[in-house]
Amino acid sequence: MKKGVVLIFACLLCNNLIAQQNYFNPTQKVKDYLEPAIPHSDQDKEAKGKLAKLSKKPNILIILVDDMGYGDIGVYGGGYAVGAPTPYMDQLAHEGLQLTSTYAQPTCTPTRAALMTGRIPARSGLTRPTLTGENPKVNPWASENTTAKILSQNGYITSISGKWHLGETKGSLPNEVGYDEWLGFAAVQSEYAQFVNEWIYPDLINKPERFAAMKALVNQNVIKGKKGQENTVVQPIATIADLSKVDQIFADYSEDFITRAAKADKPFYLIHSFSKVHNDNYVSEGYKGKSPAAIPYKDAVVEVDDIVGRLMKLLKDLKIEENTFVFLTSDNGPNEDVWPDGGYTPFRGGKGTTWEGGVRVPGIAYWKNTIKPGRISDGLFDLCDLFNTSIALGGAYDKIPSTNYIDGVDQTSFLLSDNGQSNRNAVFMYSETSFMAVRWQEYKLHMKVFNTSAPRKNLDQSVIENVGMSPWVYNLYNSPKEDLSSGHRYFEWGLPGMMGLINAHMSTYQKYPMKDIGLKKPGSE
Amino acid sequence: MKKGVVLIFACLLCNNLIAQQNYFNPTQKVKDYLEPAIPHSDQDKEAKGKLAKLSKKPNILIILVDDMGYGDIGVYGGGYAVGAPTPYMDQLAHEGLQLTSTYAQPTCTPTRAALMTGRIPARSGLTRPTLTGENPKVNPWASENTTAKILSQNGYITSISGKWHLGETKGSLPNEVGYDEWLGFAAVQSEYAQFVNEWIYPDLINKPERFAAMKALVNQNVIKGKKGQENTVVQPIATIADLSKVDQIFADYSEDFITRAAKADKPFYLIHSFSKVHNDNYVSEGYKGKSPAAIPYKDAVVEVDDIVGRLMKLLKDLKIEENTFVFLTSDNGPNEDVWPDGGYTPFRGGKGTTWEGGVRVPGIAYWKNTIKPGRISDGLFDLCDLFNTSIALGGAYDKIPSTNYIDGVDQTSFLLSDNGQSNRNAVFMYSETSFMAVRWQEYKLHMKVFNTSAPRKNLDQSVIENVGMSPWVYNLYNSPKEDLSSGHRYFEWGLPGMMGLINAHMSTYQKYPMKDIGLKKPGSE
Repeated sequence: MKKGVVLIFACLLCNNLIAQQNYFNPTQKVKDYLEPAIPHSDQDKEAKGKLAKLSKKPNILIILVDDMGYGDIGVYGGGYAVGAPTPYMDQLAHEGLQLTSTYAQPTCTPTRAALMTGRIPARSGLTRPTLTGENPKVNPWASENTTAKILSQNGYITSISGKWHLGETKGSLPNEVGYDEWLGFAAVQSEYAQFVNEWIYPDLINKPERFAAMKALVNQNVIKGKKGQENTVVQPIATIADLSKVDQIFADYSEDFITRAAKADKPFYLIHSFSKVHNDNYVSEGYKGKSPAAIPYKDAVVEVDDIVGRLMKLLKDLKIEENTFVFLTSDNGPNEDVWPDGGYTPFRGGKGTTWEGGVRVPGIAYWKNTIKPGRISDGLFDLCDLFNTSIALGGAYDKIPSTNYIDGVDQTSFLLSDNGQSNRNAVFMYSETSFMAVRWQEYKLHMKVFNTSAPRKNLDQSVIENVGMSPWVYNLYNSPKEDLSSGHRYFEWGLPGMMGLINAHMSTYQKYPMKDIGLKKPGSE
Repeated sequence: MKKGVVLIFACLLCNNLIAQQNYFNPTQKVKDYLEPAIPHSDQDKEAKGKLAKLSKKPNILIILVDDMGYGDIGVYGGGYAVGAPTPYMDQLAHEGLQLTSTYAQPTCTPTRAALMTGRIPARSGLTRPTLTGENPKVNPWASENTTAKILSQNGYITSISGKWHLGETKGSLPNEVGYDEWLGFAAVQSEYAQFVNEWIYPDLINKPERFAAMKALVNQNVIKGKKGQENTVVQPIATIADLSKVDQIFADYSEDFITRAAKADKPFYLIHSFSKVHNDNYVSEGYKGKSPAAIPYKDAVVEVDDIVGRLMKLLKDLKIEENTFVFLTSDNGPNEDVWPDGGYTPFRGGKGTTWEGGVRVPGIAYWKNTIKPGRISDGLFDLCDLFNTSIALGGAYDKIPSTNYIDGVDQTSFLLSDNGQSNRNAVFMYSETSFMAVRWQEYKLHMKVFNTSAPRKNLDQSVIENVGMSPWVYNLYNSPKEDLSSGHRYFEWGLPGMMGLINAHMSTYQKYPMKDIGLKKPGSE
């Protein structure tokens, strides 16, 4: 071959490679510290037009259910079929936008951290659930910016109602990390539950020394506080009766907060963070046996659904429904270890894993007269996108500090445009600091997987890597349960593209590294 | 103890046992040859009132999709989420009644036999799919009564459009077993597909002798016929192009039949029986790549959905929508052996098994102004109930011959009453002539189970029995995937009741025995 021919051939190859990479990664970098998004100028214009019609800044209400399964809500294949109808959540979906590919982190604390900071937990350091009495060697919040903090500095009144579980020590409670006020508990339902039921925790409760040792670690109260003030006790959580009431107390507080904000004519940002349906479920008065299934978990789903109905009714009664963006989701997949006090996912695996069962969650966006009713979309949505989207809706996008890398993307136009497409190209999935898998279009590629062969699905969370034909690829349209692999036959054409996405993602750590706050497991390097 | 005390105590025990049995089996026997149903006098009255308002006998349209998974339709958790939106089927559900516990038989022929005769396949003898060129030693139809036959004798014009697969020999085609007319093919999509694609069936097509031997067995045509007349060829099925058109031909015929019936002002009974989405799927013109998933199975789901839309539009255009009862379902779970040319179920197992994945199917009832829109019910429905319900709607219930035991129950009041409860107490599940499992309320008890541990789920259909803690019991509300057993802890209280149901069911065979038509597997006794 002559030299010229070789050169032309090389250029063609090179162009082809670029074309393939562009197909797999059509995103555009705008700022160095912001995750690149897919540009959609037409739908951006349409969404901007809708927002321009508002007479004031919109309210933002994020409804976060704990440990609820993708399959628990009626419109996701649950409801009546699994013994707990969810008419209010179904209505929210029917009159709004139902997302079928919303992703959380595999566990609670990481998801909440991602949702509030817009960052993959490996960057904030909040890579696993914080434990009772645990004091991380570094306060992660010292170098993080929450949505609440940024919106509070830009005209919003901000709050969280309910479960926190993002640190219990000085400097890490909501009113210390940007929220104007809050009411809730610092840890998680299960921490309180273990003190109140001797039939489930006999060895803890019936041994006085053990009980005392445990009790010394936990602030067993519903508390509340305002920015710059100390938190005070609202109610102790010492008995089953106490614990059964907490979601009603949180709902009352959310109603009060929304009403005050509406009367003050101030835009609000509120995360309504349920304690339910995390184990152990104790329903409040009137809910025992109310679901057709008549077990605590299902009764708790009915209570949660009723509270969603109450909050939606309040928005209507206050006539702020047309000025409020609502997003309902769950923080991870159902916990199969605590069955039958856990939820349902049609997918493989559960909480704690990066199989779809662990990370794919319900996602319903509702905004009367702004989001078209009856929409359903399989477009990708990562809960860390709520950081960008909320701040964009609040008109403070240029106030996002450039010090931290933001993994979220602004999904305003995806959600608001009548035929909006997702602005997110891929979802990257982690277990703590370990990169596990990536979802792109309908494909999911696992570099490592969790063992799901144990009798209780999460008990053996050993990670498998480099076995057989790894990486493993599943087409989630024809193998939603990730049980029939596309292997190296149906997706060989796409492997270089997917690998390219992972490489591009990994390269962001060079300038913006992971933060170690001391949550690594003892014994791991 | 004194004698009197012992007697009183024995009576109390006895009363308790009767009370427990009544709770598990609240049905009432009306006729010896009819499966007892749960009496619901109020809802019966309400349904009768609705029917009394009709000025003529209602039309009955049963839409039967082949091998479609429970999870393929949007409202069952599929649609957009699995790469094939189903707007017309979703609309049917939203404007009608979505059933979440409809049961088919594990395979095609048995389900169709049960649907048309109201009888468990073990009684009709049609216990497994008939095979190409197979000639059962006994014609099962000689002693069976189809819905079509009974309705035809009582003022209806009756037809089936599309797939038959209930016998190809003399005396067993639709126009010989009670249908006034029909158009379709005698066997099943896969029988025709194997002649047309050398890339899938190379060893058959590329060996002339083998090809000829196979070809001699199959009537490779779309045919049609009328009662008392010979069937004639409509179109050969010799190429991929031929095969790709059949569902459009069936749809054209159904439209023609419905239009003729409407113009003649005669009530009709029509089963629209798709060839799709049974493998191998070849979509008709315009459908290649039309689904987001862009694979044949998903494109076929879109084509099926469009045809459902066409049929519904026709009812509207002909102004007979308010006088037509529509029921849409599938004949069994998805076939996992043919993946990726198969469907999706969120449940365990697939076609061929008595796990929920094999037998739980979509069930949507629609009747404008008669069935309340937006209803969802988990009440039990067995496809053999369509026999009783169709005949009841046609006003011919007292014409059901008393010679055969009918396993179906009349579900008219369940479907038509605004808050109707199922009239069926339990669903009994078989593999061929072998009793496998029973569903009662949310519980399913397996006496035997299929092995689902093979890489392709149905490949190893070996039956497991009496292993470990059998029978196995699952609560389908908290273990929809039948993976976390209630064992002998959570349902010990109910085991005697469930066993009682099985015993009562088995006792019906004493007077009405199984019929052996010669479909038993060679080598089995």
